[in-house]
Parts: sequence; structure tokens; C-alpha cells
Amino acid sequence: MNAAAARITALDTYDVRFPTSRELDGSDAMNPDPDYSAAYLVLRTDAGDGLEGHGFTFTIGRGNDVQVAAIDALRAHVLGRPVAELCADPGALSRILVGDSQLRWLGPEKGVMHMAIGAVLNAVWDLAAKREGKPLWRLLADADPEWLVSQVDFRYLTDALTPGRALELLRAGRRGAAGRTAELLRRGYPAYTTSPGWLGYDDAKLTRLAKAAVADGFTQIKLKVGADLADDVRRCRTARAAVGPRVRIAIDANQRWDVAEAIEWTNALAAFDPYWIEEPTSPDDVLGHAAVRRAVAPVKVATGEHVQNRIVFKQLLQAGAIDVLQLDAARVGGVNENLAILLLAAEFGVPVCPHAGGVGLCELVQHLSMFDYVALSGTVEDRAIEYVDHLHQHFTDPVVVAGGHYAAPTAPGFSAAMHRASIDTYRYPHGTYWAKEPAA
Amino acid sequence: MNAAAARITALDTYDVRFPTSRELDGSDAMNPDPDYSAAYLVLRTDAGDGLEGHGFTFTIGRGNDVQVAAIDALRAHVLGRPVAELCADPGALSRILVGDSQLRWLGPEKGVMHMAIGAVLNAVWDLAAKREGKPLWRLLADADPEWLVSQVDFRYLTDALTPGRALELLRAGRRGAAGRTAELLRRGYPAYTTSPGWLGYDDAKLTRLAKAAVADGFTQIKLKVGADLADDVRRCRTARAAVGPRVRIAIDANQRWDVAEAIEWTNALAAFDPYWIEEPTSPDDVLGHAAVRRAVAPVKVATGEHVQNRIVFKQLLQAGAIDVLQLDAARVGGVNENLAILLLAAEFGVPVCPHAGGVGLCELVQHLSMFDYVALSGTVEDRAIEYVDHLHQHFTDPVVVAGGHYAAPTAPGFSAAMHRASIDTYRYPHGTYWAKEPAA
Repeated sequence: MNAAAARITALDTYDVRFPTSRELDGSDAMNPDPDYSAAYLVLRTDAGDGLEGHGFTFTIGRGNDVQVAAIDALRAHVLGRPVAELCADPGALSRILVGDSQLRWLGPEKGVMHMAIGAVLNAVWDLAAKREGKPLWRLLADADPEWLVSQVDFRYLTDALTPGRALELLRAGRRGAAGRTAELLRRGYPAYTTSPGWLGYDDAKLTRLAKAAVADGFTQIKLKVGADLADDVRRCRTARAAVGPRVRIAIDANQRWDVAEAIEWTNALAAFDPYWIEEPTSPDDVLGHAAVRRAVAPVKVATGEHVQNRIVFKQLLQAGAIDVLQLDAARVGGVNENLAILLLAAEFGVPVCPHAGGVGLCELVQHLSMFDYVALSGTVEDRAIEYVDHLHQHFTDPVVVAGGHYAAPTAPGFSAAMHRASIDTYRYPHGTYWAKEPAA
Repeated sequence: MNAAAARITALDTYDVRFPTSRELDGSDAMNPDPDYSAAYLVLRTDAGDGLEGHGFTFTIGRGNDVQVAAIDALRAHVLGRPVAELCADPGALSRILVGDSQLRWLGPEKGVMHMAIGAVLNAVWDLAAKREGKPLWRLLADADPEWLVSQVDFRYLTDALTPGRALELLRAGRRGAAGRTAELLRRGYPAYTTSPGWLGYDDAKLTRLAKAAVADGFTQIKLKVGADLADDVRRCRTARAAVGPRVRIAIDANQRWDVAEAIEWTNALAAFDPYWIEEPTSPDDVLGHAAVRRAVAPVKVATGEHVQNRIVFKQLLQAGAIDVLQLDAARVGGVNENLAILLLAAEFGVPVCPHAGGVGLCELVQHLSMFDYVALSGTVEDRAIEYVDHLHQHFTDPVVVAGGHYAAPTAPGFSAAMHRASIDTYRYPHGTYWAKEPAA
């Protein structure tokens, strides 16, 4: 096989579901019983080099099959494409997928269809990074600013960010990159942990896990709130007592409130010095977040894990609605759209603290923050990647978090690949686990 | 069978696609080649009364299978429900579908999953109206205001509209309802037509159809714009010459532009006195629409066919971003969410001119506008329902448009049912049409 002539020969999909609802890991005010799942795909080629592209959409159980169907609907756009060309310009495929004149009716650029596009593009980036022999963060950090700009779709952004301005930001971002790369490899990237704070945990478990987090070197933890105010007061008091006055405690309502209730509830917890209130209301409500932010300062407002695309992030920034931008690696249109979102955050000077947890979201998103540190914003000040200590064992290149920091990945790719045995065990409904333990 | 004990026994789905791309009917700047399609469902019961509930999501071809998969994912929430209870309170099912703690991750309340919810709820409303022996508009217009309020999900709305205020609006809306019902039955509801204005039509066809529209009694037509400015100038001039100065000409860019381009392009067409500019930019861009509106007045700004839910409509109204609200019967979470949207429009005093066309959208949405006229806003001033003269023959109770007005439907239900023969012919990919004429 002539490697230069290699093509994509398969896009295989897998419905993988982990039975996390049976442990109450991951329970919050809106999502009491998630089964953390992945609509997973593998791109195969005839290059003969053994390299594959892996990607996925994270879901929380039911509907993972719908997400797989959406990824399947994109197969015809990918099969047969020359691998070298595809990996040299994922942005070209991004424009084809987002622009499909019939599929875009199902969004546009939101929900099931857009997450499917993100999964496919992330798989392409995984393959591209493996072919370069670099972890994705390094491929991005080493790339020409002009090429990075070519990977971004500026449609609907130019009232806030033009390609010319993006190029300036990326050129400026490269100054001192070598020093920051060395620093990143030495120290890693700051993390915060949500593991102590799930709603389903009792106070003793909260205290134990919060103390353990501080002992492990974390300087920020996060608590789920929003189900019951008296409970939240008690849990915030418990957590503050456990960690002391210096550790940041973020609180997260997972979209539970209307605007007035968000303001009232957050202010009722202000005595415990929460660092940010996350998802106080609908992720679609730009003006609502702006109203909440005005009313709860100095508590910061954070959102993003359910923000559907760059256009809503643009408005959150234009409206002064957020203090902290929480991009998600698998919610929007892949690395390409996340480049746009990182550029918007840099332009508006808002720190990015990515959403992670779930299945494999930590593995993916670390690459985006590390690129941002090395070659765009140039700082980790007030920035940290969420960390949840679940399900990493299913990945072939799991995150390494120690001393409150993510170690920079060194293996080529986007850290997206699951072990074959995990897929075989947790494929739904016929994997060996589900065949024995059918869902309710 | 005891009718009081009747239950839902089946939710059957159908992937129905019409080959409209072969005629360029429906072509616009973003959707050059739509195959108008329906992800269609039928609710069956064991009541023995022969009544079924019909509903659908409109799509434009590829991805209709993904939409069907999303409807299938809701089946378990519907099967076995007591029919009388379901039809007495579709709002209860609405809360269950929107609130499914795992499925909501796929939205929330947007895109494929939310449109599936809308299709199922619309089918329930169709069945409810048939059981009442009333067309849906009349069921809604006759309903108690308190009950209508109970059908609305006010989550994320209360900073703009509370249940109490909604009740006031509905109580006020009933004054004079009997007279308006009589007027509606006599005159119908105003329509405007998009049939002359598709991008794929040449100037002679545009002129011929525009003149025919005026002769048919329409006082407003609509032109697609946004592909090429010189073409648009010529087409607007042609249309204005054809219809004279008195007929309103709306223009529709179908999301083609960024903010600055929308302003520039619209102002370049101002000489032809466009009535509104529709979808000047992304349907997600509340702040963008507000900026466009400030810069193109007195040309009005209209949007809504792709607005994902009530939360975005709320913000469009709060931000003063639109002059005309174009709700769609099959984009959001069914009749329940459209009640919320009609109430928001009434609260802000913004006229509703629904999006229609597609497959069956005219059939559905007329019921919502007629309810609004009889029992909510109480007026048709500056209001008109879009009309496109395609595909009505596939419906068992097709719209009747004459003299520029929709005749009020009198048959019980939501006018959503397709002929069995149409489904059998156009089911994809095995219907008799597609079996003979495979898609490219």
C-alpha cells in the first residue's frame, strides 16, 4: 500500500454504556441517575500503519443509540477520503459536515447532530496527531498561526472576532511558548476536583473526600447544589469546614433555577464564600446569566458544558454574562469549534476552566487547555481543568493527575481510545455486562 | 373494550421523503436542494373508536432517519398510558419527556431530541382534539384559561412571564371570543405566500407567480435572498414591478449572513421597500438580531423557524431583537411550548407570523394562529401565516387557502394525518417511489 494514497476505509460505531447510576457517582440536581455513556467511533484506513482515529460523544445513557445513529448519518461524508489530505485540513471536513444542506436542518449546529459532527472531527484530529507522532496539544501548539486560523469557521463570529484578529492573538500567543512547554512538562496543568461533591453522597463521605482532595494537592473543589436549600447550606458548611478558608469551593446548580431563584439561592450560600456558581440557569439563557452575574458578584458565574456552539459563547462574552468559560471537548463541533471558542475567550480576556468528567472528557479536554496555555492565552492564572476520578481505567492513555495537576500527555493522539475489552464488556445491549445485568 | 380504560398500544414511526430537490421548489440561500420529509408517527389505542394521533417532525431529507430514531427513543414513555388521562393533560407528558434525566443531555430542549418530543406531543394533541370532536384551534380557544396555563412549562421564563400574568392574558383574551370565532369562520385567517420567491426560479417565473399571488388576493409575498447581491437587486426590482407599491414584499436570507453583512445587504435592498428581513443571521444569535434590527429600521426583523425553544424566543423579545415572531409548529416541544411562545409574544406585544411550508407545516400551524386570534391576542393586524402551495395533496385534511386567507379547519384534530398511499409511496428507502428512483 502506498501510504500517500491511503484512504478512510471504515467509520465503525459503538454504543458503550457504563452502569454508573448504580453507584450515584455523577448525581446532580438535574441528572439524578446518569449511566455515563459514549457514542463511540473508530476511523480505519488502508495506510497499513496500524493507526486509527478515535472519537466519541459523551451521553448519560438513554439516547446513546440516537447519538450513534447521528454519527452513522455522517459516514458517507468520510469514507474514501484521502487520509493525508483529511489530516492536513480537518477544517475542510468541518465545513462539509456543518454545511450539509439537508442535515443542517436538524440543528443547525446544536444538539444530537452537532455533537455527532464533533465526535467525527475529534476522531480525525486523533488520527492526525498520531500520524504526526505528537499528542494533540503539541500538534496545535507547534502549528502555524495561519493554519490554525484556517481551521476555524468564523461564520457568525465576525462581529466579535475576525480572522485577522485571531491571527494576531495566535502570533502573540507563541511568544515564550518554548518556556511554557518546558514548564507544562515539568508541572502539569492545574486541576480542580468534583469527586467530593455529588448530591448522592452523605456528609461523612463529603468530608472525607474533600479532605482527601486537599491532601492530594487540589486548591479547588466543587459541590453540586440546587435540590434543597437547607441541604445545600449544610453541605457548603460541611465542605468549608473540611477544607478551610483558602481552598476554593465552586458550586454547581446544573441548570436547576430560573433567574430570580438563582440569585436568591446563590446569595443564600454566599456566607460560605463560593468561588463560582456554575450553570445557575438554562445554558441557552445568555441574558439570564448576565442578570444573575450582576446580582451575585463577587461570586463568579461559570457555564459552558451544555453551551451548544461558538455563537452562544460569543454572546455570553459580548453580554458580560460569565466570569469563567467552561468549554467541553465533546459538546460542540470538535477541535475546530473549540479553537474558535478558545480564541473568543482570549479576545475577551475570560479564563477557560473546561468541563470534564463523564466518560473520557478529562482525557480529551486536557489537550485543549494545554494548547491554550502554551500558545494562546499563555497563562494558567485562575484556570483549572475539572477532574473526576471515574472510568479512566477504560482508556488506553488515561489522564495522570497528581499534586492537583494534569500531567501533560506524551503519547501521540487525542487520548480518546478505549480498551477493546471495555467496549466488548459495556456495549449496549449485547456487551457481556448488559447481557447479564439488563437495564431496568 | 371499556373506552375509559383505553390505553396507548402503539407508537409507529415512518421515514417519509418527498423528492422536492428535483424541482428546485423550496431552494434558498442555505438550503439549495431540500427533499421535504417527515419523521412521522401514529399513536394507536385500544379504545375501539378508530381514532389515532398523528404527528411529525419536518426535515429536509438526509437525517430523517436520525429524527425517526429520536422519536423511537420516546416510545417507552408513551406506551400503555391511559388515553383519557393523557389527552386531558398533555402537559404532564410534556414534563416527562422534556425532563427525562438521561435524554435531556442530548439537548437540553433543542435539536433532534426536542423536535422528537414536539412530534409526539403534537400527536397527543391531535388525538385529544379528535376525541373532543373539535379542530385543535377550537379545543384551545374553548379551554379554561387555568387549564391552558397548566399546559405550559414556565421553567426559565419567569423573569419575563409568570403563570399569574399568563392567566391574566388568557382571561383578557377570551373577551369577545365568540364574535372573533364567527369572523374567523366567515373570513379565515390572513396568509402570505412564498411560492413566487424561491431562489431557483427565473425572473419570468417570479413575475408570473407574483402577479398570480396578487390576483389570488395575497397582500404579502416573500422572496429568498442572500446568495448574490446583484441577483437580489434584480429580483427585488422584478418583484416590486410585478406587484406594485402596495403589496408587502418580505425578504428571507435563511441565516446566510454575519451581522455586518446582514446590515449592509438589507440596506442595499431598502430601495425596494422590503417589509421584513427574515433570518438575517444565525437563529442562535439574539444579540446579533438586536444589532441588525437597530441598523435596518424601518425594515422589520423576523425570525423563528429555527429558534430552538421558548428560552431563545424569550430573549429575542427581552432584547428587542425582533419585530415579527415566526413560530414553527414542529421545531419546538409541540403545542405546549408553542402556547408558551404565543403567551410571550402577547406579553411583549409582538405579532406572530408563523413559519409554514415544508411538509404539513401549514396544516399544523394554522390552528395555533387561529387560537391566538380567537382567545389570546384577539387580532390579525400585521399577522399572516406563511403559505406555500406544495405537498398538501398528501394530507387527509389539507389547508384551504383562498382570497389570501386560510379557511378555518372544521374537521376534528390537528390536520396532521397523511394519506396512507402517500406514506406507502414515499417511505424511504423502500416505498414504491424510492425503490424505483433511488437517491443519488
